[in-house]
Amino acid sequence: MFSVTIRDHMLIAHSLSGEVFGPAQRLHGATYVVDATFRRATLDADGIVVDIGLVAEALRGVVGELGYRNLDDEAEFAGMNTTVEALARIVADRLADRARAGALGDGARELDGLVVTLHESHVAWASYERRL
Amino acid sequence: MFSVTIRDHMLIAHSLSGEVFGPAQRLHGATYVVDATFRRATLDADGIVVDIGLVAEALRGVVGELGYRNLDDEAEFAGMNTTVEALARIVADRLADRARAGALGDGARELDGLVVTLHESHVAWASYERRL
Amino acid sequence: MFSVTIRDHMLIAHSLSGEVFGPAQRLHGATYVVDATFRRATLDADGIVVDIGLVAEALRGVVGELGYRNLDDEAEFAGMNTTVEALARIVADRLADRARAGALGDGARELDGLVVTLHESHVAWASYERRL
Amino acid sequence: MFSVTIRDHMLIAHSLSGEVFGPAQRLHGATYVVDATFRRATLDADGIVVDIGLVAEALRGVVGELGYRNLDDEAEFAGMNTTVEALARIVADRLADRARAGALGDGARELDGLVVTLHESHVAWASYERRL
Amino acid sequence: MFSVTIRDHMLIAHSLSGEVFGPAQRLHGATYVVDATFRRATLDADGIVVDIGLVAEALRGVVGELGYRNLDDEAEFAGMNTTVEALARIVADRLADRARAGALGDGARELDGLVVTLHESHVAWASYERRL
Amino acid sequence: MFSVTIRDHMLIAHSLSGEVFGPAQRLHGATYVVDATFRRATLDADGIVVDIGLVAEALRGVVGELGYRNLDDEAEFAGMNTTVEALARIVADRLADRARAGALGDGARELDGLVVTLHESHVAWASYERRL
Repeated sequence: MFSVTIRDHMLIAHSLSGEVFGPAQRLHGATYVVDATFRRATLDADGIVVDIGLVAEALRGVVGELGYRNLDDEAEFAGMNTTVEALARIVADRLADRARAGALGDGARELDGLVVTLHESHVAWASYERRL
Repeated sequence: MFSVTIRDHMLIAHSLSGEVFGPAQRLHGATYVVDATFRRATLDADGIVVDIGLVAEALRGVVGELGYRNLDDEAEFAGMNTTVEALARIVADRLADRARAGALGDGARELDGLVVTLHESHVAWASYERRL
Repeated sequence: MFSVTIRDHMLIAHSLSGEVFGPAQRLHGATYVVDATFRRATLDADGIVVDIGLVAEALRGVVGELGYRNLDDEAEFAGMNTTVEALARIVADRLADRARAGALGDGARELDGLVVTLHESHVAWASYERRL
Repeated sequence: MFSVTIRDHMLIAHSLSGEVFGPAQRLHGATYVVDATFRRATLDADGIVVDIGLVAEALRGVVGELGYRNLDDEAEFAGMNTTVEALARIVADRLADRARAGALGDGARELDGLVVTLHESHVAWASYERRL
Repeated sequence: MFSVTIRDHMLIAHSLSGEVFGPAQRLHGATYVVDATFRRATLDADGIVVDIGLVAEALRGVVGELGYRNLDDEAEFAGMNTTVEALARIVADRLADRARAGALGDGARELDGLVVTLHESHVAWASYERRL
Repeated sequence: MFSVTIRDHMLIAHSLSGEVFGPAQRLHGATYVVDATFRRATLDADGIVVDIGLVAEALRGVVGELGYRNLDDEAEFAGMNTTVEALARIVADRLADRARAGALGDGARELDGLVVTLHESHVAWASYERRL
């Protein structure tokens, strides 16, 4: 099994609802360093898993939709907590949507799966893994 | 599949028995930067894998039991080599014990598994993965 | 010249005023991984620059005053941009205040200077250096 | 499941054929920071996955065969693209060959698998995973 | 004294002349992770050292001039060794030229100095520091 | 001003005397990831600060003298605390001795200074800087 990973990042504000979050119930923010990993059983004719230029562009697009925003104000996240775990899934699902729509090229049909990791600090990170 | 990881560290002394260890047969020590990763198929009602405040506390507890000690003098490790692999398992098993005892909250019952990675230097690390 | 550095972090929300900030004029946030470095020409009788336990506590105190907050709502920052550069200075000045107030122990009188670095992402950071 | 990882690196020149590679079709080069991870279900009598001294030596041997070379001039890579994905497999396969030939000691017969990760920069890396 | 740093990278091929370089006399290559640090005594009216958007663009421009190339074929480097130290200076000097030409904005006139660090691997890097 | 840095590491055991050290008064140990930085105003005829092959060898020699040892048992450290600050100086002084003895080549006479940084964990490190 092969994989390739591309890193980007986003800066967001949000608050989290629930006693479990302690001081993070207040409006605060985070830098998420985002790693997107694509998996595939065999390489294509060019010897690659996927066109990483297209992956970088797609990832830049997804973090651009989320970054420099207060996620508490985004209608699509109303009623949910934008935890780092939930955001890892949102980034992964949006990358999967873009892959399906052709943004990663034709070869992306051969991709097996995708892992997105969001690093919140030097001591905490979260991942979400899904099929493609 | 979701996961969250928390990092802490411990400083220990030990020696290792067996020719395979070369100079590490002498009493020496190491910093282990410890990553504890918890896996779960779905998020809870708060949108999290597990309460990372409780995870950080549990991990701090476990590294506190081991750190600032000469492991050669600890009765519980008599007759075994406290290699980085073995210590990864010890940390994982102790975290699993704490999870079972409720230290990670009720939601920890839904956790699928746990990976503990101990980084010994910038060029060597070891992991142990188990079910919960 | 000797130095010791301790790392901590904080998560904040803020917005920045001025066209130069582009999308960062919107309310967003950041994780700042904070490195506090203390410099001293000679070591004390214990062989240290400063008690790093006290430094860690002081740094934890300072990031605790700033973290999990929307800095736009803090009266003390009214009328200023809480850029990463400005925040590096605020952290450094507050650590200097604590050192002067005795929070780093008597030996802290011998400290020459202080550098605070705030890492905003894997590709951007800022520092402020001052005398003590 | 246990694993141990050893890191080394190599510096190579190469060019890549195919429009997908854009400017990387020109002769250029890369540092690959190489992580070799060995997996095993149980530890041996010494408490280890594998002799990491032997692993480090084997990995040094493999990166020594590839490093400080223009891969475009190596007969064994004629007609293929030495992408980071392909090189991850080459390093893994060569380590597997060495393991089979006894270079990792007798215990290496118990190894389950191997992952090789090549980091091309702070924002891009690739892995290849195989059975042993 | 304040500073801000922006990170980018470039992939180049080259060879080095002189016995001191051992196997690096052969054509090979490297990834250089490039950190550009700008220093300034006081912040401007916006609270910044320099517009980091412009710095990122300038740095991207400079690494774009060098990257994905065989430096042995570049006329401007004829007769010199493109060591990591020499390349750190070249990047710094080109950033200084761009600053002087206005590419970093008017405020760049207040910059005191510049440090460029090129990381060649996880175990080796080089810096060049100059006035502006 | 130019500089080059080489990284290596050592694993030691020790204990520290004095209440300020808390639990570190017990016998424990540490991994020190060691960065040795050499500074020089101008490059030599080969375009380098110093032969990094020789630096790597010298650094390997120095960490080899200290590593895999209980520093409490080394006669040369009797009556002193082998704090991370003190060890940074010891490593720097030993590298300076080797430079003076010719181990870094003739060009090392032009070196201006040396900084040694010892990283004890992901959250703590210390440096010592001296002239050459």
